[in-house]
Amino acid sequence: MSSVSKYKEISPAEWFRRNKSIAGFDNPARAIYTAIREMVENSLDACEEGGILPEILVWVRSVEGNIYQIYVADNGIGVPEKVVPKAFAKLLVGTKYTLKQSRGTFGLGGKMAIMYGQITTGKPLKVITGVDGKKAHYFLLKIDIQKNEPIILKKKEITLKDNWRGTIVSFQIVGDWMRAKSKVIQYFKNTGIVAPYANITFIDPDGVLYFFRRTTTALPSKPKEIKPHPYGVDIETLNRMIKATKAKNLVKFMMENFHRVGRKKALDFIKHCGLDPEKNPKKLTDKEKRKMVVEMKSFKFLPPTAESLSPLGEEILLKGIEKELQPEKAKVVQRPPRSYMGHPFIVEVGLAYGGKIPPASDGKYLLFRFANRIPLLYDEANDVAMSVIKEDINWSDYMIGRDAPLAIIVHICSTKIPYKTAGKEYVADIPEIRREIKLGIQECARELRHYLSHLKRKEFAEKRFSILSRLIDKFVKSLVQINKTQKRIKREYVNDQLLKEILINKIKVE
Amino acid sequence: MSSVSKYKEISPAEWFRRNKSIAGFDNPARAIYTAIREMVENSLDACEEGGILPEILVWVRSVEGNIYQIYVADNGIGVPEKVVPKAFAKLLVGTKYTLKQSRGTFGLGGKMAIMYGQITTGKPLKVITGVDGKKAHYFLLKIDIQKNEPIILKKKEITLKDNWRGTIVSFQIVGDWMRAKSKVIQYFKNTGIVAPYANITFIDPDGVLYFFRRTTTALPSKPKEIKPHPYGVDIETLNRMIKATKAKNLVKFMMENFHRVGRKKALDFIKHCGLDPEKNPKKLTDKEKRKMVVEMKSFKFLPPTAESLSPLGEEILLKGIEKELQPEKAKVVQRPPRSYMGHPFIVEVGLAYGGKIPPASDGKYLLFRFANRIPLLYDEANDVAMSVIKEDINWSDYMIGRDAPLAIIVHICSTKIPYKTAGKEYVADIPEIRREIKLGIQECARELRHYLSHLKRKEFAEKRFSILSRLIDKFVKSLVQINKTQKRIKREYVNDQLLKEILINKIKVE
Repeated sequence: MSSVSKYKEISPAEWFRRNKSIAGFDNPARAIYTAIREMVENSLDACEEGGILPEILVWVRSVEGNIYQIYVADNGIGVPEKVVPKAFAKLLVGTKYTLKQSRGTFGLGGKMAIMYGQITTGKPLKVITGVDGKKAHYFLLKIDIQKNEPIILKKKEITLKDNWRGTIVSFQIVGDWMRAKSKVIQYFKNTGIVAPYANITFIDPDGVLYFFRRTTTALPSKPKEIKPHPYGVDIETLNRMIKATKAKNLVKFMMENFHRVGRKKALDFIKHCGLDPEKNPKKLTDKEKRKMVVEMKSFKFLPPTAESLSPLGEEILLKGIEKELQPEKAKVVQRPPRSYMGHPFIVEVGLAYGGKIPPASDGKYLLFRFANRIPLLYDEANDVAMSVIKEDINWSDYMIGRDAPLAIIVHICSTKIPYKTAGKEYVADIPEIRREIKLGIQECARELRHYLSHLKRKEFAEKRFSILSRLIDKFVKSLVQINKTQKRIKREYVNDQLLKEILINKIKVE
Repeated sequence: MSSVSKYKEISPAEWFRRNKSIAGFDNPARAIYTAIREMVENSLDACEEGGILPEILVWVRSVEGNIYQIYVADNGIGVPEKVVPKAFAKLLVGTKYTLKQSRGTFGLGGKMAIMYGQITTGKPLKVITGVDGKKAHYFLLKIDIQKNEPIILKKKEITLKDNWRGTIVSFQIVGDWMRAKSKVIQYFKNTGIVAPYANITFIDPDGVLYFFRRTTTALPSKPKEIKPHPYGVDIETLNRMIKATKAKNLVKFMMENFHRVGRKKALDFIKHCGLDPEKNPKKLTDKEKRKMVVEMKSFKFLPPTAESLSPLGEEILLKGIEKELQPEKAKVVQRPPRSYMGHPFIVEVGLAYGGKIPPASDGKYLLFRFANRIPLLYDEANDVAMSVIKEDINWSDYMIGRDAPLAIIVHICSTKIPYKTAGKEYVADIPEIRREIKLGIQECARELRHYLSHLKRKEFAEKRFSILSRLIDKFVKSLVQINKTQKRIKREYVNDQLLKEILINKIKVE
């Protein structure tokens, strides 16, 4: 029967321990893959945040049985001593809660990896981090899962001589390396495509060293934080804004709190809602607030700008593709910024052809998917990019056969990636995004067709040349025969002349 | 640059508000569907918990624009006054955190629905609930999302005269009813299959009333709570057990804390780990604990029992199928309990043929999927049951053509359903589960083949009979001709005799 004692409250850490699969920790194979990925992403973020060219070392060492030690070191901005315990050993604490593009959507992954390590091996986490090049701090940490609080087991200050800055984490985890291996290697390879400005060294449990060398020193531009766009605001957000605002009237309130709302837009909107522009926002009734939020969804505001985004740019993406895929020809396109439901996004697309790319079987071209610079490796079949490739593009229009050696690269960046699962596996089919992917692929494909038709023409010309050159000898002989007396015409001269004409396509061949 | 102030902590409510899609609140269509489903599931649970035949009323009323009022009333066990605010307006508080089968995996859905209503409409939640038939309590509640704490706006005691018990909730939500409608109706229809013991009335926003009438008064057996099975225990759990135990030695500790571990198993296991059975569990070193957890995964323990499960049973499932699908023939099978990774599970399968079931096109038979009595309506293509149907069963072996009017019903119940997404959409491909689904379908299909071949034989016999009966007249006439003198042989008699012989298959027809 119902009783009060049956109702229990649990900490977020305990909740996520019970629902590990939500963050991609389904089984030991998936867990070790996700743990490595989350750590590398944190390292890349820590470097890019400081405008530092990343130097990342990942070492996975077999401890015993299926226990592995994961060691990740970076040269990023480091974590201030005071926040280290919470930043590494308390869930739902983080820096990634602002309205700008970042790899972490949920601000949870790294700590899930650490917690998974703790519950499967019982071992604490080691962290060494320094922010100023003068000293670093060493911590030995555990998570009190029932309370969701960090436990500091040891702490030590280290005086530095080499001006080091960065973060090193080391923890143990139960994993299934054999099953995870191919995905992990693929993850690093694909990271090379979107982060060609990073040096990444990976040492696997067999002691094999993989080095992904930097091929450019250009870093993508840093995203800026933006105010919420009216399209994406709910009543909770509006209430918090009203509580915090110092604006004495609605016009000022709108202008100060919303992205892309100037005086005129603010006035138009407030009148559209049937409200007084001079009204104090703190005096809005619940009904008026509801009215505002409902109208915000359909009113014609300017679309969000892309300053909160950090696309790779065509140059960096091209470098990455050339580095990892080594194609014969590659074309990259960055689409203009668009938005869906108040979230700005940019789609970047690349097509790579030939070279080291293997021929497709039956139109199954290689697809490399990225979202906010994270490689997506699972559930490809459900991804919006796959739908575009299969349903929206008529490849034969672009002279691309079903056995073409083609790779398609799609990178979506947004303040809010519409993932369908919390494990960051695939992107939902949002019409606005689908359209941009399609237009991006078409633009690249047109360029590729140009190249392919040029190739074909060249091939054709070469063929023609080889046929003609066989005729030349005979032809020259005849000429010489006819002009026997005209010794001035040298056989060599005729030959040269003919070749020239052939090359400039003046002689037509049937 | 890195600074301490950048690190922020957020409440679980705030975290889930920012990650709504994790719990199935992706967009207004999905949100209203999920909200209704979560509320109905809570109501069904509240009835079954008390062994009460459910009477549930769901009323979705259009308020204005895309705002809807959702009203759900049940006759379940009710919620004690003291816990009402937390039970309805604080996340990560619930009763569904024990090791037994329940609809809610995450103990979160109902409150997500309420929070989604609050952030989209700004309106509070109304709850009336009573546990004892003497009085009920009315609450007007909101969630303080930033603190994850309930706010009580109003509270009133109601004296009852009609001995009522149950819970009524009412809240508003922004939804897209037009897009959600078909899924909601399908949800109720499918719920009818697995809960034929419930009366469910649904009134939609157009005022149309749907009544899903109870066709059986048999309730499924109530699941019992069990201790954790060694296969599913991590170090965190072991540490908590050790902290809480009063057992003075390892043998007792094992016997008291683990499912299916008796004295002999405990002794064998402890020796297998190289430990002393008389050792005090509180004196185990970290290394010894790790050893125990690692060995638990592979040691030969008895599989978990099914007492923590509450399958429907063949009788109830058959009733449900007959009620909602109205087939010509249905066969239902409950497979014996099995386990995966320490979680017990039972698979129930039904095949329904003919009647109101439409013919399949190209082998795409109707599939109805359920997990812990929840209909699963999304992402069918990725579900383990679909893989079995498409890859593991040779339907022609069972005389089932690609156009057969066939429906397949698969119900999995477990203390832990391996959902691939948090939105409870589809079940992962776990080999142990896949095998049971396959065997269940095969068993039903054999029965169906029996029926179909009987049908065919009957059809054949009828055909034969009609051919023969056309011959009889001639034959009898000849007989009569031949035996003209023997007036005793009546034409009718011959006819009868012949018919008998035909019917008992003594006359063979080429």
